[in-house]
Amino acid sequence: MPITPVNRTRQAEFQQLIDQKTKPLGALGQLERLALQLALIQQSPTPTLTHPHLLVFAGDHGLTAEGVSAYPSAVTYQMVHNFLNGGAAVNVFCRANGLQLVVCDVGVNGSFTENAPGFVKYKVAPGTRNMRYEPAMTLDECEAAMDAGRILVDGLVYRDCTVVGFGEMGIGNTSSASLLMQRLTGLPLDQCVGRGTGLNDTALAHKLQVLQAVSDRHAEAGHTPVELLATLGGFEIAAIVGGMLRAAENQMVILVDGFIATAALLVAQAIDPAVVDYCVFCHESNEAGHHFMLGHLNAEPLLSLGMRLGEGSGCALAYPLLKSAAAMLSDMASFASAGVSEKE
Amino acid sequence: MPITPVNRTRQAEFQQLIDQKTKPLGALGQLERLALQLALIQQSPTPTLTHPHLLVFAGDHGLTAEGVSAYPSAVTYQMVHNFLNGGAAVNVFCRANGLQLVVCDVGVNGSFTENAPGFVKYKVAPGTRNMRYEPAMTLDECEAAMDAGRILVDGLVYRDCTVVGFGEMGIGNTSSASLLMQRLTGLPLDQCVGRGTGLNDTALAHKLQVLQAVSDRHAEAGHTPVELLATLGGFEIAAIVGGMLRAAENQMVILVDGFIATAALLVAQAIDPAVVDYCVFCHESNEAGHHFMLGHLNAEPLLSLGMRLGEGSGCALAYPLLKSAAAMLSDMASFASAGVSEKE
Repeated sequence: MPITPVNRTRQAEFQQLIDQKTKPLGALGQLERLALQLALIQQSPTPTLTHPHLLVFAGDHGLTAEGVSAYPSAVTYQMVHNFLNGGAAVNVFCRANGLQLVVCDVGVNGSFTENAPGFVKYKVAPGTRNMRYEPAMTLDECEAAMDAGRILVDGLVYRDCTVVGFGEMGIGNTSSASLLMQRLTGLPLDQCVGRGTGLNDTALAHKLQVLQAVSDRHAEAGHTPVELLATLGGFEIAAIVGGMLRAAENQMVILVDGFIATAALLVAQAIDPAVVDYCVFCHESNEAGHHFMLGHLNAEPLLSLGMRLGEGSGCALAYPLLKSAAAMLSDMASFASAGVSEKE
Repeated sequence: MPITPVNRTRQAEFQQLIDQKTKPLGALGQLERLALQLALIQQSPTPTLTHPHLLVFAGDHGLTAEGVSAYPSAVTYQMVHNFLNGGAAVNVFCRANGLQLVVCDVGVNGSFTENAPGFVKYKVAPGTRNMRYEPAMTLDECEAAMDAGRILVDGLVYRDCTVVGFGEMGIGNTSSASLLMQRLTGLPLDQCVGRGTGLNDTALAHKLQVLQAVSDRHAEAGHTPVELLATLGGFEIAAIVGGMLRAAENQMVILVDGFIATAALLVAQAIDPAVVDYCVFCHESNEAGHHFMLGHLNAEPLLSLGMRLGEGSGCALAYPLLKSAAAMLSDMASFASAGVSEKE
C-alpha cells in the first residue's frame, strides 16, 4: 500500500492558527514547526496524540564474529531480559513519559521462555549470517522481519494509537547501520562509522577495516532497497523498516530515534520517500555518523544530549515535547480570544 | 542565610552508580550529568522530584516609554489575565508536564480583581521608573520585590516541593536583562542586546542606543549587586533573584529559563555564588545574548529549540528530562542486578 504524502493544502491555515497564539511571532521556535507537522499529519487544527507506543526490536548479528563491537553478542539476549524485567533505560523513560513499551524478539540468539504482556516472539532466525562472507539475510528472511514490524503496527492501529516510536537492541548493529548509510547517502565510509557502544581508537580502526571489506564484498548487491537491507542489515533493522512504512501508511506520527533507527528510515525512504513526512526526529545521537545522516535528511532533531544508547530511548525522552506542541494548538489562547494587544 | 555549596564528598560514589547502570559507559550523555547533579543536590543515590512548581512573576518597566519593545506595555497586564485564564503557553506546558503554576503580580501597571488559586498579589509599585533618567527602583522597593520571591519559595518548602522554576512576564524586560548582563559579565553591550519580542533592525539599533545611554547614566551605580539590581532591574527580575537565593538556601533544584531568568541568576550569583550549584539550565534561548550568558556561566542547557518566549516556558518543557534523569538513578537496573555482561 503506497504512503499518502502529507497533504499541505491547509498548511497556511494551520500556520495562521499558530501565529495567532498569544506569543511573539515564531517565539516557540522548533516547537511551532513540530505543531505544524502534527496538524498536517492529522489534517486537524487540534492534533491529538493517543496511546503512544514504543516498539523495540531485538536481533543478533553474525558480523560480531569479526570483533566489531565493544560488548559480547550475548548482551543482546541479556538486555532483552532486562527489558522484560523493566530495568533498562527505555523501560524507565517509557514509564516516566507515558509510553507503552512493546518488545519483540525478531532475531535474538537465545530462547525466551517468558510470556509477558508486551513481549512478542517473532523470531526469524537466531541472528543474521556473517556478512563479511555472505548476505546477512535471505530476501525471504528480510521480508519476514519486515512483516514483524508491519504486524505490530497493525495491532497498534486497532488500539487507537496515533504515535509510535521504534527502538532496537542488537550488539553489532551500528555496523549494519553504517553500511546502509554509506550505500544510501553516498557519503564516504569513514563518515558513516563510529565507536558504537564504546570502541577505543584501535578497535575503531579495526571496525572500519572490516566494514570496508564487507562493503567491497557486496558492492554489486542492492538492486532494490530490500535486497540492500537483506545483504547489509539486521532483523531488528528490517522490522523497523517494515514498521515505519506501515505506520506512515496509517498516517501515524513516527518517532525516529538515533543512528540505527535513522538508518532504517533511510531504507524505508528508499522504498517510499513519503515516509519522511510522518517522521519526527527525536534526537541527535553522539554516534559519529548520525550528524551526517540527519544532515542528509535535512532533519532537525528535537534533543541533542550527547546520547548514544539506542533502545528507542531518544523517542521516549522527546515524546513530552510532542505532547506540548500538540497542546499548544489545542489549548493555547489566541490574541483575539485572550484580549491581548498585538505587535505595534 | 548563606547557601550551602553542594557537598561533593559522595560524587565518586554517585558516579559509580550511574556507570554501573545497564548501558555503555556515558551513553546517556548530558542526562547522566544531570542525574549526578540531582543526586548531589539531594545527597541521595535516588533523588526524587516532588511537587514541581513554576513561579511566574510579572512587572512593568518605565523604560518602555523610550520605545525599546515591539509590544505595548499594556501587554504585561493582558498576559497576566491570560495566565489566570489558563491560556498562555506556560499554562499549557505546565499542564502537559505536571508542574503547578503560581503567578505573582509584583509590579504590574494595572489592578487585578481576580482572587484565583495560584495567583499572588504582591505589588510593590505599578511598574518601575524610567531608568534612562533615574534608578528603576529604590533599594527598599528592590528588597520588597526580592521578598516576594523569598516568601513564595518559603511557601513551597511547606508543600514538600523539591524543584522550582522561575518565569517572568514584563514588556521591556530584555532591556533590564541586557544591562545587568553587561555589568555582571563585562561583555560589550552589543553582545548583550537582542530583538526581544521581535524588533526589526531599525528598532534594534534604537534599543541599543537607548541602552547605551542608560548604561552611561548609571555607570557609577552598583556598588553592591542589590544596588545594581535596583538601578537596572525590574520587579519581576528582583523577585526571581530573591526566589532563586531562597530556593538554593533550601537546597531545592532550580529550573533556569531563558534570557531574563538567567540574568536574574547572574545577580543572585553575584550575591552568593553557591546558588549556581542548584541550577539546571533548561534551554538556550534564541534571544541573542543568551548564548554568551550561558557561556559565561559555563552552562550546558538541556534544550535548544530556538525559543524566545520567557514565562518560564523552557522550564516547563525541560522538566520531563529531569524526571527521566532521576528515574534513571532510582529505577534502572545495574549490570550486576540484571545479569548483563560488561564491556570486553
